[in-house]
Amino acid sequence: MTLSQVRAIPLGGVGEVGRNMWALECGDEIVILDCGVMFPEEDMLGIDLVLPDIAYLRDKTDRIKGILLSHGHEDHIGAIPYLLADLGFPPIYGSRLTMGLLQGKLKEHRLLDKAKLVTFQLGEPFEVGTWTVEPFAVAHSIPDAAGFGITTPAGLVVYLTDWKLDHTPALGRPTDVATLSALGRRRPVALLTDCVRVESPGYTPSEATVGESFDQIFAIAPGRIIVATFASNISRVQQVIESAEAYGRRIVLLGRSMERNSKIALDLGYLKAKPETLIRPNQMAQFDDDQIAVVCTGSQGEPMAVLNRLANRDHAQVKIQPGDTVVFSATPIPGNETSVSRVINNLFRLGADVIYGADAGVHVSGHAAQEELRFLLALLRPVTVVPFYGEYRHMVLYRNLVAQMTGLQPQPQVLIPEPGGVLAFDQMQGAQVGTVPVGFVFVDGGVLDEDSGVETVIRDRQLLARDGMLFIVVSIDAETGAISGGPDVVSRGFVQMRQNPELLAATEEAVRKTLAEISRGAHGATVTQADTHFIAAKIKEQVADLLKRKTRRHPMVLPLILAV
Amino acid sequence: MTLSQVRAIPLGGVGEVGRNMWALECGDEIVILDCGVMFPEEDMLGIDLVLPDIAYLRDKTDRIKGILLSHGHEDHIGAIPYLLADLGFPPIYGSRLTMGLLQGKLKEHRLLDKAKLVTFQLGEPFEVGTWTVEPFAVAHSIPDAAGFGITTPAGLVVYLTDWKLDHTPALGRPTDVATLSALGRRRPVALLTDCVRVESPGYTPSEATVGESFDQIFAIAPGRIIVATFASNISRVQQVIESAEAYGRRIVLLGRSMERNSKIALDLGYLKAKPETLIRPNQMAQFDDDQIAVVCTGSQGEPMAVLNRLANRDHAQVKIQPGDTVVFSATPIPGNETSVSRVINNLFRLGADVIYGADAGVHVSGHAAQEELRFLLALLRPVTVVPFYGEYRHMVLYRNLVAQMTGLQPQPQVLIPEPGGVLAFDQMQGAQVGTVPVGFVFVDGGVLDEDSGVETVIRDRQLLARDGMLFIVVSIDAETGAISGGPDVVSRGFVQMRQNPELLAATEEAVRKTLAEISRGAHGATVTQADTHFIAAKIKEQVADLLKRKTRRHPMVLPLILAV
Repeated sequence: MTLSQVRAIPLGGVGEVGRNMWALECGDEIVILDCGVMFPEEDMLGIDLVLPDIAYLRDKTDRIKGILLSHGHEDHIGAIPYLLADLGFPPIYGSRLTMGLLQGKLKEHRLLDKAKLVTFQLGEPFEVGTWTVEPFAVAHSIPDAAGFGITTPAGLVVYLTDWKLDHTPALGRPTDVATLSALGRRRPVALLTDCVRVESPGYTPSEATVGESFDQIFAIAPGRIIVATFASNISRVQQVIESAEAYGRRIVLLGRSMERNSKIALDLGYLKAKPETLIRPNQMAQFDDDQIAVVCTGSQGEPMAVLNRLANRDHAQVKIQPGDTVVFSATPIPGNETSVSRVINNLFRLGADVIYGADAGVHVSGHAAQEELRFLLALLRPVTVVPFYGEYRHMVLYRNLVAQMTGLQPQPQVLIPEPGGVLAFDQMQGAQVGTVPVGFVFVDGGVLDEDSGVETVIRDRQLLARDGMLFIVVSIDAETGAISGGPDVVSRGFVQMRQNPELLAATEEAVRKTLAEISRGAHGATVTQADTHFIAAKIKEQVADLLKRKTRRHPMVLPLILAV
Repeated sequence: MTLSQVRAIPLGGVGEVGRNMWALECGDEIVILDCGVMFPEEDMLGIDLVLPDIAYLRDKTDRIKGILLSHGHEDHIGAIPYLLADLGFPPIYGSRLTMGLLQGKLKEHRLLDKAKLVTFQLGEPFEVGTWTVEPFAVAHSIPDAAGFGITTPAGLVVYLTDWKLDHTPALGRPTDVATLSALGRRRPVALLTDCVRVESPGYTPSEATVGESFDQIFAIAPGRIIVATFASNISRVQQVIESAEAYGRRIVLLGRSMERNSKIALDLGYLKAKPETLIRPNQMAQFDDDQIAVVCTGSQGEPMAVLNRLANRDHAQVKIQPGDTVVFSATPIPGNETSVSRVINNLFRLGADVIYGADAGVHVSGHAAQEELRFLLALLRPVTVVPFYGEYRHMVLYRNLVAQMTGLQPQPQVLIPEPGGVLAFDQMQGAQVGTVPVGFVFVDGGVLDEDSGVETVIRDRQLLARDGMLFIVVSIDAETGAISGGPDVVSRGFVQMRQNPELLAATEEAVRKTLAEISRGAHGATVTQADTHFIAAKIKEQVADLLKRKTRRHPMVLPLILAV
């Protein structure tokens, strides 16, 4: 391949958020940008994770010089444990916090010994193969995030995703506009950048505004304060810590991923708390309610995460009570609106005050809005810009946004990528010059959600015929959650079930037992609708666990709950 | 029962929007307020409609003096054809347009002869039993909407739902604040009112602002304009007509319910159009693209409605092409966000420009925001106020909103209703004094969506065991939509299928044929994800139709599409 062109190929999604992964090629060298997982969409029945497709790279592992990681979020580093071996264990480059979070994952997957991890300093260039990479600071909802100026033989490529300007971030450094300006003077051949907030006018507010809102809540809340946010939003956790310390509250972290991420960030010094601030759940009884704050998972209404367990009275250590204030410090990801709404309603039913929504000031996005996207183009003036990390409509609107910048001479060319589309850039132009096969790769079979802790099994959906599928059909009373019909167990391709009436009986019994337990723990007379999502997730968890113990197999379990 | 109290019982939902129905009782007399259907929530698998539960009224039909209808929307009149006989055919009172829309429904259900329909004039009181009812004008997204002042022996009850102030409505009259003020001087014992927009500060903008946005779009759109809105939003259709006539476009109405409602509103003189404005689809070829506007169903991303058929190239008369401008003149109902987003992405992929979202100014709500809700209380000053037509959180926030109105002396008492909760009111106070059983009543078995035209079958979910269930499991390629596994047909309780291998083969063939047809009509190479919702709906439609023809039975058909 010629050295006068650099090529970029998206191996993950471009038309949906997540499983970010690019292969950047020039000459014989390949550098990979990010390696993330996507959480499945609602119509991907029974699927737990979606990975990028690295088929294109399988016979080219000797050419892969390294993997550059922009920051420590799942949709940028989560696929590494699944794909690293197939990529031939190339060196992985990341900032200190990103590496800390990655190490935890690699350890769980017993890959830490084999992985070559290189920690870079923001602002200090390093070599990958024959290329020079300049990592620069980026403000996002996690500290130590990086953008990259990548000097290839064919020119400079800038990779900048998951960023906003934010001159007053809660943690970490503001976006390094001086370096962006310096890179701009070199006229990049390509900018790969996110466009997910192109529908929002103006500038994204600073993280600092969230801290002010927290202070107002902490100043007057009469009882416990429970803040739900993403486990990966380290900056937000820091803001809760700061408000808690200012107003004399201790903090309990709840949720496996919340505890794990916070511990890493504390150990590395990114999260800062007084020694006495963080307490264990069993220490809560020593404090008054207005001396306690809880930070937990479940801000997206995930059925099995901490917050929905609280809303369903399914948590051993915390019971929601009148006087509690619950804060949703996150925006529902598209598709999660109904789940979030259900959790809010149920928390209100249990007597809590609930603070949520855009007007409450308790969340800001980590992504750049329209004026920031324009600012970046004015600063960088790339020959070609490739928007990604957004739905198709976002990419089209980004193209319109660039077209409106008639004062920018010459105007950057906008290329809308598609998965597997081979984009080639030089000093004059960018163009799609071909495609490579890129599909979906699914992970299924045990990861119920971030809080379940069940072992992960990677499998291709095509192989499901081997382990089979199990439908569990139950009718329940829409008000009480009691069984009104079934359970009927229907298996396809799961041979053990057909040959084993005892296993069938045990499965049905597990379903009945799960429903009885949920029913006992339910809210009581004030609940007007059973939470079928929670019930389905509990049944899936219990049945998958039973079948794994009894048969060592992992059929896909699909509970169908009919609320009657 | 005493004449010193009036009682109100919600027989439909209160914690979800839809199936509005109240029984108002005083002494021996009962008056029913509205009688609506709810469209099912996502977890009500296979269900097409949800009705109020009139079990409480079954032995009291001789005491029912009448049904008052506030306006012609489905969630206020849609259940009448299903419940009227069981209610003993009491007289139904409504405004002229409401009655026009209801007559169409009753005719389809062959009930028009038996129904007693009484048309009232806004502002002219009438008697129902021994009570006096004063209907007054209300601005909403359909003209001829009414609120009611109801004088019972125990005092005045005001029923005002689905309203906003709007001094410049597109059609019909503004909300009659003079009558509200007069009713307020009589100190109502109770106000029953909607609270669904209590999260929105300020005032809901006037419908007139939408007309201005339409004008701006019609002035510059280079090709066809396609406006999607609710078929029941007669005011919005009028605004499209006015902009079209101002900018020299003809209008095509697409979608069964859109055509039916518009015809009724035209016949009654509520919709106004020049004779030449409305054309048939087959006349479109006579005009240039910039002389055509389409008004269609599907603004909620419903899989089988017109707009999603357009987005999936499944419409015989209209093919989306570059130059088309598609306008979403509606806000996604919670739960529909992902479906709407999918349709938007696919329309962009086909080259259309798409205008959507709160900032576009092409939709305003028909419901009152915070300041309007406060204004109503200041004007009416009821002893007790019952918020409904909102989720549980809306009712709690409404209670908080009232509590903040410390200048209102005495403050109204707020009662949060629950389905079947018996609320009693007198001059001093209101209280829940008991409950009656109220559950969900489902309609299932053929209504695929508003555009399918399939005959409706009413059945209780409990009786499903008789007709049985059919799961159809198909794996498809996530990118092309081609079959990659199955179809597997699994039946439960549907005896015919087990005894009849030919029927099984015919069912599988119908699925294969449907998928092949969709695949042929698909967008081509630019589509990165098959529309599994559309595929599932098409399969359900085709298989249900086949089984009905072959067996005269209506098993619940649940397609499970695995996108691989």
